[in-house]
This record gives sequence, C-alpha cells and structure tokens, in this order.
Amino acid sequence: MSQPQEKYRVTIAYGDGIGPEIMRATLAVLEAAGAPLEYDVIEIGEKVYRQGITSGIPDEAWEVLRRNRVFLKAPITTPQGGGYKSLNVTIRKALGLFANIRPTKSLHPYVETPYPDIDLVIVRENEEDLYAAIEHRQTTEVVQALKLVTRPGSEGIIRYAFEYARAYGRRKVTCMSKDNILKLTDGLFHKIFEEIAAEYPDIEAEHRIIDIGAALVAARPETLDVIVTLNLYGDILSDIAAQVAGSVGLGGSANVGTHAAMFEAIHGSAPDIAGKDIANPSGLLNAAVMMLVHLGLADIAARIENAWLRTIEDGIHTADIYRPGKSKKKVGTQAFAEAVIARLGQEPQHLKPVHFRKPGVSVEIRPTPRQPKQLVGVDVFIDWDEAGRDPNVLGRKLEALAGEAFRLRVITNRGVKVYPGGLPETFCTDHWRCRFVAAEEGGTVTPAQILELLRRIHEAGLEFIKTEHLYTFDGQRGFSLAQAE
Amino acid sequence: MSQPQEKYRVTIAYGDGIGPEIMRATLAVLEAAGAPLEYDVIEIGEKVYRQGITSGIPDEAWEVLRRNRVFLKAPITTPQGGGYKSLNVTIRKALGLFANIRPTKSLHPYVETPYPDIDLVIVRENEEDLYAAIEHRQTTEVVQALKLVTRPGSEGIIRYAFEYARAYGRRKVTCMSKDNILKLTDGLFHKIFEEIAAEYPDIEAEHRIIDIGAALVAARPETLDVIVTLNLYGDILSDIAAQVAGSVGLGGSANVGTHAAMFEAIHGSAPDIAGKDIANPSGLLNAAVMMLVHLGLADIAARIENAWLRTIEDGIHTADIYRPGKSKKKVGTQAFAEAVIARLGQEPQHLKPVHFRKPGVSVEIRPTPRQPKQLVGVDVFIDWDEAGRDPNVLGRKLEALAGEAFRLRVITNRGVKVYPGGLPETFCTDHWRCRFVAAEEGGTVTPAQILELLRRIHEAGLEFIKTEHLYTFDGQRGFSLAQAE
Ligand SMILES: NC(=O)c1ccc[n+]([C@@H]2O[C@H](COP(=O)([O-])OP(=O)(O)OC[C@H]3O[C@@H](n4cnc5c(N)ncnc54)[C@H](OP(=O)(O)O)[C@@H]3O)[C@@H](O)[C@H]2O)c1
Ligand SMILES: NC(=O)c1ccc[n+]([C@@H]2O[C@H](COP(=O)([O-])OP(=O)(O)OC[C@H]3O[C@@H](n4cnc5c(N)ncnc54)[C@H](OP(=O)(O)O)[C@@H]3O)[C@@H](O)[C@H]2O)c1
Repeated sequence: MSQPQEKYRVTIAYGDGIGPEIMRATLAVLEAAGAPLEYDVIEIGEKVYRQGITSGIPDEAWEVLRRNRVFLKAPITTPQGGGYKSLNVTIRKALGLFANIRPTKSLHPYVETPYPDIDLVIVRENEEDLYAAIEHRQTTEVVQALKLVTRPGSEGIIRYAFEYARAYGRRKVTCMSKDNILKLTDGLFHKIFEEIAAEYPDIEAEHRIIDIGAALVAARPETLDVIVTLNLYGDILSDIAAQVAGSVGLGGSANVGTHAAMFEAIHGSAPDIAGKDIANPSGLLNAAVMMLVHLGLADIAARIENAWLRTIEDGIHTADIYRPGKSKKKVGTQAFAEAVIARLGQEPQHLKPVHFRKPGVSVEIRPTPRQPKQLVGVDVFIDWDEAGRDPNVLGRKLEALAGEAFRLRVITNRGVKVYPGGLPETFCTDHWRCRFVAAEEGGTVTPAQILELLRRIHEAGLEFIKTEHLYTFDGQRGFSLAQAE
Repeated sequence: MSQPQEKYRVTIAYGDGIGPEIMRATLAVLEAAGAPLEYDVIEIGEKVYRQGITSGIPDEAWEVLRRNRVFLKAPITTPQGGGYKSLNVTIRKALGLFANIRPTKSLHPYVETPYPDIDLVIVRENEEDLYAAIEHRQTTEVVQALKLVTRPGSEGIIRYAFEYARAYGRRKVTCMSKDNILKLTDGLFHKIFEEIAAEYPDIEAEHRIIDIGAALVAARPETLDVIVTLNLYGDILSDIAAQVAGSVGLGGSANVGTHAAMFEAIHGSAPDIAGKDIANPSGLLNAAVMMLVHLGLADIAARIENAWLRTIEDGIHTADIYRPGKSKKKVGTQAFAEAVIARLGQEPQHLKPVHFRKPGVSVEIRPTPRQPKQLVGVDVFIDWDEAGRDPNVLGRKLEALAGEAFRLRVITNRGVKVYPGGLPETFCTDHWRCRFVAAEEGGTVTPAQILELLRRIHEAGLEFIKTEHLYTFDGQRGFSLAQAE
C-alpha cells in the first residue's frame, strides 16, 4: 500500500454513556488497519456541564480543536434541565461547519428494512435557516422567529453537494425546498441550485417541494441519490432516512467547513445500555471511515468499510441488529470490532464493496459582489389592541400619519390583508404589519423620512415594535406582497 | 332513520381535470344515501385564472361561500407560470379556516401498504407559521422570512385537536414541534399544548421533536393517533402519512374555521387521466363524509363510509388501487360510485365499521388578555460590507454611537456571536444584528431613545435595514439570547 508516512493529528473525545466503549472499539479497528493517526483527547459532555460550563466544552479544548482541524467525537449526554446549550450547535457554529453529510444505505437482507435498495446521502445546510434561533416576542399574543437564507451559505452547501456527487461517483442531486410558498428565501436556494447545477452537466439535477420530497424519502427512498436542502428540512429528512433504513445504530455523519470537520455517529449516548459491552460501534466506525476519506486516506477507509460490510454479511451482529435465525452470532462491542479486524483485507461477497476516490471535496464560502439597491418603503409593525381591533380604525389613523413622503399601502394581520377591504371572518391578533411605500408611485424614500414617520406614529400614541425596510435590487422587488395586495 | 327534514345548502365546485367526474360520482352517492343537501355551484380554477383573475375565484363566488359556510370542492388545476395565487391559500385565509384535518387509515390487505395498522389524524394549524409568507431581502446576500406563532392561533388548533379526539373516540394526542431549537415560537406552542392537555385528562398527551416525530410517521405510523402541529410540519407530515398508507387517491381533508369549512380530496386534478372515467372518486367521497359529520348528519355519513369500506373490501377497485389476483373487479369512476350505492346499508365484514358521534367540534379563536411589558432594548440590523467585514471595526463604531441610554451588548452574524470576542473561522455575511440594551443593568429604554439611536447610526453613515424591539413581559425575557451571549 502507498500510504503516506506522515501522521495526521486528530482530536478525539470519548463522550458519555456508550461513548467510551464504542470509541475504544473504533480506535482498535483504525489501528489494526494501519491508519497513520495520532490523537489529542479532549474532555466534553456531562462532566463538563456538571462543572457549570454551560457550553459543555472547556476553553482549553477550543485550541486543540482549532489546531488539529479534524475531530472524531463520541456521543455525549446533555443533562436535563434548562441552561445547558447544545454542544453540537456550539461547535458547528464556532468552527463554521456549514455542511452536514449523512449517508444512508440499507444492508438488506442482513439488517431489516422495508426498503432494500436505499443508498442516499443527505447534504444539509448547517448554519442558517431557523436555526439561527433569532426569536422575539413583542406583543401579548405573537412570537416570531427569523428564517435566514444567504447567497454565500446556499452557494456553499449546494456546491458542496455537487462536488460530493462527483467525488463519490454519484449521479443525481435532488434539491428540496418549499419555494412555492417561500418564494424569496427558499426561492433563492432553488435559484442558486439551478445556477450551480448548470456547472455540473455530468450530474442530473432535480427539485422537489419538501412535503413531496419527505414523502419520497419515507416511501420511495430508493429513487433518491444525493439530496441537498436547508437546515430544518435536512434535520427532518435525516431522521426519516435513518429510520426507514433501520440504520439508527449504524450511521455516521460528518460536519464539514472550510477550516475544520467533525465526525460522529448519528445516535446518542444511549445511557440505558452503557458500560455493558453490548452497544453497536458501527455508527462511530462509519464516521471514522468518513474522516479517513476526508484526510485523503481513501484506501484505508475502503479497507475498513469493506471489512465492516463483510462482518455484517457474515451475520456477526450486535444485539440491536441481531435476529435469531437470520444472524449467525450475537457479539458484544469489542468482539464486533475484533470480527471487523479479522476481516481487514476482505471484501463483501453480496453487498457492493466500496472504493473511495481521493476526496477533492473542498468548498469555500465566498462573499457576493455588492448589488445596488433602492429604499422604497417600510413595514412598520404595531402592537395595537383597541377599538375591538377594527382594522379600519387603525387604517384611518395611519393614513393621517403617512405624511408627504409615504402612503399607507396595506395592513396585514398574520399575513392576511385586513385594510383596506378586509373580511369580517379574519381573526385579528394584536400584531399589525403596516406597509408604507413612497407617496409617488415607484418612488424612493430616505432613512431620515422613515425615522420621521416612526416619530409621528410614536407621538400619535401608537406603539411600533419592529420595522422592516423595503428595498428593490436593480429594480427587482426584495419583499413579498401581501395576499391580494 | 331520524334525519332532520331541513335541507342544508352547501357550495360546490366541479373544479378541473378529473374534478367534474369525481364530483358527479360523489353527488350520486350523497343523493342515493338520502343526504338532505341542496347545492350552489360556483366556478373556480383554470377557467377563472385564464380570464385574468389571478386569485382563481370570481368576486361573486365569495358571497355564496360566505352565505352557505360549507364548501365541497373538487381539485383544480393551477396554471403554470407566475402571477397565479394558490386558491386554497386564498380561501383558507379569507374564511379563517384555521384547522386542517387529515385522517389517514390503511385498508390492509385491500390496499397495498407496508404498514397495515395506520389509523391516524393530522390536525394542522393552517394560518400561521412561515406560511404568512412575510419575506424581505434587505442586503445583497441575505433574505429572511418571518415565522409567526400566536397564542390565540395555537390555543385554537390545540383545543380543536383535543375536541376532535373526544368527539371521535380517540385516545391520544401527540404534539410535534422543534422547541429544543425554537424555544420561543415552538416553545409557546408546546407550552400551550401542556396547558390545554391538562383540561382533557381522559386523553393521553405526549410531545415529540418534529424530526423524530416525522420519522415515526414514516416508519412507525401505527403508534400515532391524533397529531397536532404547526403549519409547515403538518404539511410535511400529511404527505408522508398519505404516502406510507398508500392512500393518496383515497384521502379526504377538511379545512375548518369558526365561520366556515371547506372539504376536498387530498389529491390534485390529475389532468393526465381526466375525462376517461378511470379516476378514483374515494378522496372526494371521504371529504363529503367529513362534511356530513360536520353538518351533524352523522348517521348518513356512517352509512356512506361503511358502504364504501365494504366496496373496497369486496375488491371492487378503480385502476389506481387495482391489483390482479387480489382485487376482484376493475371499475371506472361511475361504476365505483354505483357499487358504493348498491352497498348502502351494509357494513364491512373485516375492516372496522365506523360510527360517527354528533360533531361537537366547534372551537373559537379568542384574544388573549393583555400582559404588561417593558421595553429593554433593540436589535438594530445593519447592512455593512466594509473593512473586510471585520466585526471589531463595526463593534467599535457602534460602541461610540450607543450614547447615554444604551450599551452595545453583542453583534451576531447569522445567529453567531462575532463581537465582542468572535472567532476567525466564522464567515460573516453583510447582515449584522446589533443588540443594544439599556445602559444600566436591567433598566428600560423609550421608543424616543431608540429613534435617537437610529438617527445617530444613520448619521454616522451606517445603514440600518430593520429593527426588533426587545421586551420583557412581567419581567420575563421576550427574546432569545445569542449563542454565548
Ligand atoms: N451527537 C450526540 O452527542 C448526541 C446525539 C443524540 C442524542 N444525544 C444524547 O444522548 C442521550 C440519549 O439520547 P436518546 O436516548 O434520545 O438517543 P440514543 O442515545 O441514540 O439512544 C436511543 C436508543 O437507541 C438505541 N441505540 C442507540 N445507539 C445505539 C448503539 N450504538 N448500539 C445499540 N443501540 C443503540 C438504544 O436502544 P435500546 O434501548 O433499544 O437498546 C438506545 O436506548 C441524551 O442525553 C441526548 O441528549 C447525543
Ligand atoms: N387542492 C387542489 O385543488 C390541488 C391539490 C394538489 C394539486 N392540485 C393541482 O392538480 C394538478 C395536478 O397536480 P399533480 O399531478 O401534482 O397531482 P395529482 O393531481 O394529485 O396527480 C398525481 C397523480 O396521482 C394519481 N391520482 C391523483 N388522484 C387520483 C385519483 N383520484 N384517481 C386515480 N389516480 C389519481 C394520478 O397518477 P397516474 O398518473 O399514475 O394515474 C396522477 O397523475 C396541478 O395543477 C396542481 O396544481 C390541486
């Protein structure tokens, strides 16, 4: 074999629950396969949380993570009760791990699944969407969260999906979004998908509305290859895919950024079976295989993966996938690792052996060249609970406050137009979106004029709670119209 | 039978594609079953769109819909190309149809499904969430959508789910949300679920994170009974459920509000098979059964549903569910209706016969009593693309502008803290959320002070693009903290 003599230094964490035992099993296989790795161990998880460190990770660990850039992480236990932050979210955000990669494969007939031919990969955007968790409550009745979609972030993840497809010899990338409703946010994601797909004519590209797409993952998963999607949708799809493939205990995942990458099993710390040497180490082992590919150690990765497939095929199974009559032998965590080690150099005979190409999947997130924009109005949100919430009363008040620069175009309540010309069936909350546009058709306004408008609204005794400027970009509308506006 | 002699006047629309033929089949069954109904026919859909009415519904139809309050709707075709609005969304919003009800049942072994024991109902919030479609692009790189969750809306849908469970003799209601991430919005939904569940001690209540919940619907649907959830999640779950039950051509759905209700099949107008008398009318027929229950005509509803179940059981199948060897007879749309009519008065012998209770499901959406609040700061969003996007440059500028009333607490970019003390790995977009709080710890600020702050920011040459006021309610924080704030 032509492996480099150079050693790669990676960070590892043994985690909680079944973490230590599956990590030991995984490291044993890596060593037996000759992976040229050295480790720095960091402490994360329950013990750290209990020390009062709400992030679950001590300060000194960050240096190690940032120096080594590659992290193999066993599952941790997040203590119950408030105040603890998700360690995964913290690490992803801090290290800019924008791509979450989750392969799902059925191992029929060795692992039970109603879908024998699943072989898909979900490439999930990892930093944006609703997971920025910017939430505000500004009235008695209404709470809001911001969903953010950015051009650089979308370009990054979509390009990653196509690069991945190319590097792993896959043929199709399916984009999933809800752009029939969310025309600007999901619409941007879909549009960028079309742009980037055009640069990869060798790979088939298609788009599905997320509801139909999720139903496909659930009921026709064999029709899918690489899926690229936004954060929340990807989160949901990943769980569906793992469940229908019966691979919750088997799957690995990668979180990849420009500067660093983290690899882990998709399952948690399973405290109920911890310390008993019965947990399946396959999830973390598969994560380690993804890590080897990432490091450019494609041959060693394939060696381990093929030995693992052969072990599964030989019916050597841990308790979670053992089925009397079908499996051959029930083994513990360490014995399973030894069975894999004993098969290093062998390939599966019925399942398809794997051959990884050198990675080449490296994508940078880049700023977008500035585009000129024009300020054409403002949405002023008002907390109002007077006059039986009659929109006409509020409408007339605001008409009188619009001044020379603006005209009141529409008031909506939960997205439904209620002024002018609302319907009596519409239930109105205390949260009113009041759209002011330039008085003259197609004209622009200034920030100073907006501040004046807000001052008039405030002095009239109305409470503005938030504002959204309305822009056009090169003349193109940068805001959605209200229903029937 | 003790049916009232009174006739109910309902609105119907024949729709497009297979709409007219499945409507005729459905009306034939309703008539044969003695449903005391009279109809007003309205024109909607393709023809109306083509006349240039972008809503797909002519003005005069609204009066009819609002007068009759009950609407049985065949599927319509939405023409391709921009400018056309979703008719369903328009009707739902205008009539305040806040609840979408979708029962899903497997008809094993008569209709193929991997899950023989599905019998679940999805109760989906229909007016709020991201579907308010309030979207803004305010910088070159970033687009946002608002997700709105309200207390009255959440109370309405959750109460509806429990009332439905009671009226239909169901035992469990499962709430699904993503409140581990969206602590304020989905958190509110979950909290209200707990409050209302306490009023229904006879019904089991549980909560699932939506990703795990969606995986359950996909892979363990028989464990679910009534599901109540937010708009987007419900949209996704409904498609998964219909798909795994193999019932896309069979399912009906209801959209219910305080003042009106609309009933339709879950499928579309299937133009490829239109006019051939081969479409399955079961979806619309099941919708009509829901309508009868809604009108209080529980006995006639059960009569039809049981005859329909018997027809399915007898192997009289339309092409979409016909399987050689298993089905007995392949029939067309009208012949299927006749087979159902011939079985009126019969019950299924293997499938469970249905017996509907008098409805009693009527829920009103009510305002929430005002809660006092305090203004404690403001998030100012800035479009900024200078100095290599170094957060420290922006941070120092803003520190200098905070003035007497405020102090700059944190700057985040896509939800990640970048000032003070950001990490170099974080990619920064041109969209900066700058949080100003009262200068004195725990103090309050005034709207006038906020306007002054915005003026200073504007005059310093920085472009504010949106604002979000920060409030506490009875001292409780009404906004999320930034990662590591
Ligand atoms: N990335 C992470 O670090 C991560 C991810 C998810 C959850 N968690 C944390 O893990 C803790 C437990 O979460 P959870 O119970 O929801 O999920 P879980 O740890 O994945 O365990 C759920 C169940 O799955 C089975 N299972 C999971 N991994 C297995 C393995 N390797 N071998 C055999 N069986 C396995 C066990 O089922 P049986 O009971 O049938 O044996 C276990 O009880 C929580 O504190 C959670 O916060 C951490
Ligand atoms: N509420 C509504 O009015 C509504 C809802 C959804 C879609 N639509 C509209 O309907 C049009 C077509 O949409 P679509 O093709 O995506 O979905 P679709 O109309 O539901 O049809 C998809 C396929 O499902 C099968 N199918 C659906 N209903 C059937 C029935 N009653 N009997 C037998 N087979 C049935 C047909 O499959 P085969 O080809 O295998 O025969 C059909 O081609 C579009 O204009 C869409 O906008 C309207």
